[in-house]
Amino acid sequence: MGKGRFILPAEAGMEKELLYLAEKWRADAIRDCDGIKLSDDILNMSFDVYSTLCIIREDNEWAKKNQDKLQMIYLITEPVTAIDEIISIEIMKGYFKEQFKPNTKDNPKEWWEVIDRTTGEIIDSSHWDYNECTEVVTIKNIKKWHSYTVTFIAWQIWEPVSMYNHIINSWTLEHKMPLDPRYPEVRQHLLSVLDKWLAEHPVTKVVGFRTFFYNFDLIYNENGKEKQIDWFGYASCVSTFAIRIFEEEYGYRPRPEDFIDNGYFNTPFKNPSKFHLDWIEFNERFVASFAKECVKLVHNRNKKAIMFLGDHFAGTEPYGKYFTQIGLDAVVGSGGDGVTTRMIADIPVEATEIRFYPYLSSDVFHEREDLAAEVTKVWIKSRRAILRKPIDRMGYGGSLSLALKSPEFINCIQSIANEFRSIHENTKGTKADSASFKVAILNTWGRLRRWQTHQIAHSLWNQRCYSYLGILEALTGLEFDIEFISFDDIKNLGISQDIKVIINAGDAYTSWSGGDYWKDERVVTTIREWVYNGGGFIGVGDPTACEHYGAFFQLYDVLGVQKEIGFGLSRNKLKYNIIKNHFIIEDADKEIDFGEGMNCIYVASKDVHVLYENNMSASLAVNDYGNGRAVYIAGMPFNYNNVRLLKRAIYWAAHKEEEIQYNFSSNINVECASFSNIGKIVVINNSGENEKARIYMNREIYFDVELKPYEMAWKSIT
Amino acid sequence: MGKGRFILPAEAGMEKELLYLAEKWRADAIRDCDGIKLSDDILNMSFDVYSTLCIIREDNEWAKKNQDKLQMIYLITEPVTAIDEIISIEIMKGYFKEQFKPNTKDNPKEWWEVIDRTTGEIIDSSHWDYNECTEVVTIKNIKKWHSYTVTFIAWQIWEPVSMYNHIINSWTLEHKMPLDPRYPEVRQHLLSVLDKWLAEHPVTKVVGFRTFFYNFDLIYNENGKEKQIDWFGYASCVSTFAIRIFEEEYGYRPRPEDFIDNGYFNTPFKNPSKFHLDWIEFNERFVASFAKECVKLVHNRNKKAIMFLGDHFAGTEPYGKYFTQIGLDAVVGSGGDGVTTRMIADIPVEATEIRFYPYLSSDVFHEREDLAAEVTKVWIKSRRAILRKPIDRMGYGGSLSLALKSPEFINCIQSIANEFRSIHENTKGTKADSASFKVAILNTWGRLRRWQTHQIAHSLWNQRCYSYLGILEALTGLEFDIEFISFDDIKNLGISQDIKVIINAGDAYTSWSGGDYWKDERVVTTIREWVYNGGGFIGVGDPTACEHYGAFFQLYDVLGVQKEIGFGLSRNKLKYNIIKNHFIIEDADKEIDFGEGMNCIYVASKDVHVLYENNMSASLAVNDYGNGRAVYIAGMPFNYNNVRLLKRAIYWAAHKEEEIQYNFSSNINVECASFSNIGKIVVINNSGENEKARIYMNREIYFDVELKPYEMAWKSIT
Repeated sequence: MGKGRFILPAEAGMEKELLYLAEKWRADAIRDCDGIKLSDDILNMSFDVYSTLCIIREDNEWAKKNQDKLQMIYLITEPVTAIDEIISIEIMKGYFKEQFKPNTKDNPKEWWEVIDRTTGEIIDSSHWDYNECTEVVTIKNIKKWHSYTVTFIAWQIWEPVSMYNHIINSWTLEHKMPLDPRYPEVRQHLLSVLDKWLAEHPVTKVVGFRTFFYNFDLIYNENGKEKQIDWFGYASCVSTFAIRIFEEEYGYRPRPEDFIDNGYFNTPFKNPSKFHLDWIEFNERFVASFAKECVKLVHNRNKKAIMFLGDHFAGTEPYGKYFTQIGLDAVVGSGGDGVTTRMIADIPVEATEIRFYPYLSSDVFHEREDLAAEVTKVWIKSRRAILRKPIDRMGYGGSLSLALKSPEFINCIQSIANEFRSIHENTKGTKADSASFKVAILNTWGRLRRWQTHQIAHSLWNQRCYSYLGILEALTGLEFDIEFISFDDIKNLGISQDIKVIINAGDAYTSWSGGDYWKDERVVTTIREWVYNGGGFIGVGDPTACEHYGAFFQLYDVLGVQKEIGFGLSRNKLKYNIIKNHFIIEDADKEIDFGEGMNCIYVASKDVHVLYENNMSASLAVNDYGNGRAVYIAGMPFNYNNVRLLKRAIYWAAHKEEEIQYNFSSNINVECASFSNIGKIVVINNSGENEKARIYMNREIYFDVELKPYEMAWKSIT
Repeated sequence: MGKGRFILPAEAGMEKELLYLAEKWRADAIRDCDGIKLSDDILNMSFDVYSTLCIIREDNEWAKKNQDKLQMIYLITEPVTAIDEIISIEIMKGYFKEQFKPNTKDNPKEWWEVIDRTTGEIIDSSHWDYNECTEVVTIKNIKKWHSYTVTFIAWQIWEPVSMYNHIINSWTLEHKMPLDPRYPEVRQHLLSVLDKWLAEHPVTKVVGFRTFFYNFDLIYNENGKEKQIDWFGYASCVSTFAIRIFEEEYGYRPRPEDFIDNGYFNTPFKNPSKFHLDWIEFNERFVASFAKECVKLVHNRNKKAIMFLGDHFAGTEPYGKYFTQIGLDAVVGSGGDGVTTRMIADIPVEATEIRFYPYLSSDVFHEREDLAAEVTKVWIKSRRAILRKPIDRMGYGGSLSLALKSPEFINCIQSIANEFRSIHENTKGTKADSASFKVAILNTWGRLRRWQTHQIAHSLWNQRCYSYLGILEALTGLEFDIEFISFDDIKNLGISQDIKVIINAGDAYTSWSGGDYWKDERVVTTIREWVYNGGGFIGVGDPTACEHYGAFFQLYDVLGVQKEIGFGLSRNKLKYNIIKNHFIIEDADKEIDFGEGMNCIYVASKDVHVLYENNMSASLAVNDYGNGRAVYIAGMPFNYNNVRLLKRAIYWAAHKEEEIQYNFSSNINVECASFSNIGKIVVINNSGENEKARIYMNREIYFDVELKPYEMAWKSIT
């Protein structure tokens, strides 16, 4: 077994333990952690040293003296129903006063908005007043029984990531404040801070920016608990200063409501407004240009510059068009499954590194009893993804001392690290064989939000079953090269020749399904023509959904199914028989888990074949459309039955059924990936049981295999 | 046991059997059936004779000679996706050629519409042509991959009710054609037909109009099977002639699309367009005025005139403002449950009569094995309703000879008829005691569509679980006086003083929930104010639902709950505890059947109490709003557990908990109704088991009772 590709979090005063674990896990690098400074004893050991830095909170003394240069954010009160002709709204109710402070330096009458949410009207600013002592907005001459909100701009007085760590770890340190580099004097100061920091860290080989300037949206409630989180949010980039620059550059001034967006804060679940797209671009450009300056300083010192995908990464969109300009040497990110692993692995950067969940913090160790099982679960899902797209390095985050509490955990990591390295040793930088065609995920965001499902995974309800997530997770470990394409791509560029299957999945009206884009004739006609001429289309959940001119699924003709939303109940539906034999269900159980599933899906044509139904509603249907094919699936939570179903659906839709046996396992819990360039095939057991499988390659039975729980085995291809 | 209140369907050549059944069921009247003429032997017996007549199909010879006076209908083809620059659409594809014939007498270029359903554009009539021989519309210069429809006006060449009977009973008679009384010459002819018919039916005491002129929408497919049905549709009222009159009266000319409505045909599930409301009114006025003439002729002969609520009743809206002008003596309608029973019972007319399902036709007797159980099931639901609002007479429809096949069925009807009469004998025309307040059902249609749920009951999917139907069925037998109010009532009249509870129930965007009406500030503010000042609001399913300014349930503040539709997933939801003790669930099981249920219902305020949840989504919640109260229920299929839940929810919402024990049974399967005016109380067992119950009156234990399956027992109140 080799050594390296593994980074250890270091901890002051734990030199002995560090050495023990480094030996055990064969680490070649160490990293200091947020809030922890490495001792000289550790720094003098023979590891590559990574040091992390978040420059916008690095010099708190300067920030305290320059509080007019702190970051800002637009916040909105909960709507208040007026039961009287005057209402008073405590604007900070529901918000954490240690995190935010209303900004009155910029005139509230200019920068705030009071809105009647019953009619959408903006209340004239002469009708309301703000009392700075009580933090109350009083609105006069209002309409009784309407509901009102106050949108206000606030200072961010506690940088949210240090706040999070502070609260979790019960720190008593001074609160750090986030500086806003939009101001030239802040940028100048931060560069000098960085330069000084570099000078003071001679041992550091790699500077880990954690990350750059603006955190994703992380808003706490009055009790200091998470209220709102959006990993892809740009709420923290705002300031009255930035708005003025934006106005100059784009020729219009955004309203406070443009940021607040009816309280939805421009969530990635929604199709973005024109403004929001402009705002993303505006901030991407700025962040990339200043980040580039920072990276340059690092390179000047002959150190490497990497960034952590998370924390203050707003504006660094790794799949955006400005990202590569930053000039980073590597990106590191957290991974909890295949999707997050692939999100990191696919970033166009020289090297990628994953920090696997679970995070070694006291709350995790308290709550989870079977940590080794948790670690294994994450690894098994990530391993599938890594075999398709390797990650260069791995590690775990958090505190070393906590890891030391569990010998089982230490052994478990040891075997994962070895397995991780063995992948590199075997593949030698080559890529697993992939199918002869590409599969595209079609949504509103396209490439920009490649593999980005954090929001879905986080959500209370969607964690269990959201099909968009399930499909992406399944795809991470399959042999298809994946493109993420947007509706604008379809409109402007058409569909690339190498794409043979398009998947559209998600809830109606979300950005994942597409909502109003399905009213666009160019979208609809381009896809119809493409499928008719031989393309494959897979719709999951509410694909192509948008009530418009009498249709809900706009591509009902392609899919062969339609959804009844209540207006067509007077019409009888076509009858159908369930077809029990079909290529795509050859490995399927009697029951398929369609997750949240669907109701009231009926056949739109006599020629469609329904394979599964539930409550008289079609759950799985296949349709021929000209020379093309379509598959409808009611829902697709992640499990290995569904991975197989999706794999088969893709080959069938692509008219490439015979190709499935180029890389095929007879057992759904076992997967294989061949590496023709190096003459090897890897077989993995994704289950916790012993599994037998017959492996097919090049449409022939290749060998039979028996694997221990979670085993990964490499064989030579003769 | 008394006699009477029961009508028998007679059948030619079955005098002996008729007498046997008349004795058994103690009938006092006989009725001829559609397609059957009574023999003189029967007519001379001592029954009141009812004869049915559908004048628009009575004189087929005249119709054949005047085929330019037949009824018309607008039809739409299925959308056809253009895979070429010219497309040809067979307009009759999917329609029954024996029922409809394209009308080319009126210029297709003027009266038809070809529409691009991808863009909604009307195709200029110079771009398409109709070939009368092939019945094909050819469209040129079209946009490839758009979908196209042809809307055409057709003659109705087979009257749909006789067509239905014809097909069901495999008749070989000549097809009858429906005349359109919009033409003055048709009206004149029909009056002479009626007068002649009356002269030829001297024995007939009651003329049953079956019904007047225009059938509800009943459209058959190419195989002569039902394709589309809408009991409350006005599609059959159309003609080019009627459109011209409409244009004169209303000052605008409706487009073909106004009738076609994107293929939804102005279903009652949708909020109606301005045109559709005008169209209903236009036809109501006309139908009432000519029906009045017909009724007058009947009265002139000293006969009674009744109408069958069904078949050609379009335009007679029994809860419309023109209905009473017709001057009918009675209305008869089919009843299959409490809701249909109440729909008939509440009609403002001197007498009402119910024809219970199942209908005695060969298809019914073939399909149903346990007919007595079926008959009992219908009766038990209707009985609850009749005890709240009596129906004067009863009967069964169809063919006598079929009834004779089942002695069990004959005995079952006997006991139902006796029980039906005993209700009248006991109550002597008095009304059961009702609660001290009214309950209102709020939807788009209000009073016009009182108890009208046929569409819901018919639908494939909603038959099982649609909550709007479940609630109404529950209410039919409860002690509350019910008003059906519309959003326009709320806007124009406010909320009547005697209403204490408003119920809003249904799927989002349907007319039952209200859709866009919830954007209307007057609706929202009126209800908020009313609840705040002490009103009760019960929302079921998607109440007050319409995505608007950041809220989905517009009355989230009143209900205390909100629904997540995908845009607010970045926000954490408030936590809550399940409250296990509450007045409204005192009789509830551990599991409540919420039917189709809901997902992603979260609490909108800390003060709301969640009583039940499912998949982390609140299924039952109660909220105080000022002096008022609200209840949210995720769904409510009909069963006696839910009847009790609704009863309790209403008393709680009304702040009248103590009043529940004015008429209360300790057993949910047993209900009681007191009749104070006559000093009686009736106790009914709705279950097929022996049941014990403790009965409360005036908040005291009144007596204990033990009932046999389905028993009804009357007791004196001392």
